[in-house]
Amino acid sequence: MTLSVLPVTGLPEVRRGDDIAELISEQTALQDGDVVVVAQKIVSKSEGRVRDLATVEVSDAAASLAARLDRDPRFIAAVLDESIRVVRDERVLITQTRQGFVCANAGVDRSNTGRPGAVTLLPEDCDASAVSLRRRLHELTQVSVGVVISDTFGRPWRNGICNVALGVAGMAALIDHRGESDDDGRPLETTVVALADEVAAAAGLVMGKTERVPAAVVRGLGDGVRGDGRGSDLVRPANLDLFR
Amino acid sequence: MTLSVLPVTGLPEVRRGDDIAELISEQTALQDGDVVVVAQKIVSKSEGRVRDLATVEVSDAAASLAARLDRDPRFIAAVLDESIRVVRDERVLITQTRQGFVCANAGVDRSNTGRPGAVTLLPEDCDASAVSLRRRLHELTQVSVGVVISDTFGRPWRNGICNVALGVAGMAALIDHRGESDDDGRPLETTVVALADEVAAAAGLVMGKTERVPAAVVRGLGDGVRGDGRGSDLVRPANLDLFR
Repeated sequence: MTLSVLPVTGLPEVRRGDDIAELISEQTALQDGDVVVVAQKIVSKSEGRVRDLATVEVSDAAASLAARLDRDPRFIAAVLDESIRVVRDERVLITQTRQGFVCANAGVDRSNTGRPGAVTLLPEDCDASAVSLRRRLHELTQVSVGVVISDTFGRPWRNGICNVALGVAGMAALIDHRGESDDDGRPLETTVVALADEVAAAAGLVMGKTERVPAAVVRGLGDGVRGDGRGSDLVRPANLDLFR
Repeated sequence: MTLSVLPVTGLPEVRRGDDIAELISEQTALQDGDVVVVAQKIVSKSEGRVRDLATVEVSDAAASLAARLDRDPRFIAAVLDESIRVVRDERVLITQTRQGFVCANAGVDRSNTGRPGAVTLLPEDCDASAVSLRRRLHELTQVSVGVVISDTFGRPWRNGICNVALGVAGMAALIDHRGESDDDGRPLETTVVALADEVAAAAGLVMGKTERVPAAVVRGLGDGVRGDGRGSDLVRPANLDLFR
């Protein structure tokens, strides 16, 4: 199995209401079994998940947190609006988002928003966005693909950000090897692989941060693309979380 | 830039003293600019980093921790022997290894060890192992490649394990975009990408856990393969670690 990771280039600046599936399918010849990885940023823009900081109301809590972190109070307020829980607020603000993700600034981002003073927010429901992208890609191309909506997250203990999967459709998010045996015939123990996160990371290698490559195609996963997982499968439930 | 990820198949069971560079170069035609990703497991085996649990001495601390976790006391003792610090010991044992990595069981692993009752340990110095593999590959093939020694780690907040880079040679481990601008001309803020971790994750997609694919070649990174980073670049220093 040889895997290819192809950047999708030539996309215009995405605006609210744009049909991302159409934009992508115009730029690339999709094949059955491909996984289309799309940066959260353009999904959010097409869904209108962009907020003008000037319109954000700043609570007292947001103001005092912003002062302590030396950040724009309206940016911090926008982050708190997207959060159900603050995980850490030293130096960086790490929260759990309404979607369940734990990440810096709740995924609220000032870069590449398309207009000054605006921030992008994560899609309201990344899995629903992935399902609808997948359906629309099928409608346009008659091709059956997996879809991953990705963003770059930092990690505890490790420097640097990595692309991870927020929304998943048409493929497994996790592959569970438990019950299988290793090459010595010994049962594999805790071997659930975060397939969709590895797919997102592979796509990250061609997507870049500054070039306009907001999507990529991962081709050749073979049996990797089956099942019908969700990005929410990748979110560890609170009762199993040792790093609250 | 299209990226290819090629599995390296046909490797024999690796034993202490085996020349992994030779085994890999016999199975695949390497090209300048390739990154060769090698599973920690076979590096450890070739370096003799395999321990018979029967010979492990169990301290009182290890015995009581093992009882609490319902694990083999000698396995837990072997983990503690590789650790400088226990990070969590509820349900799973997460420690910081002598190399600096924070992971489950200090990377000590009972699967695919090649002999019953044995565990593999992480290489003593993953970066040194990567440098020496890279040098030996050059000697054998006259080709200049990057090398990543990878292992699968769990992550806080997210289900499933992902391939990450422990040792790196002949390529950047991190790519620092700070100082560059986004597409709107706004300076990018905290945008240091964990390139070597994304490369490891991409390789993970073809390496699998149960098939005998302990190495992969990532081809087409282009400028991605330059610089001379280290796996240790990916380890967050203690003073910046919010999840001690």
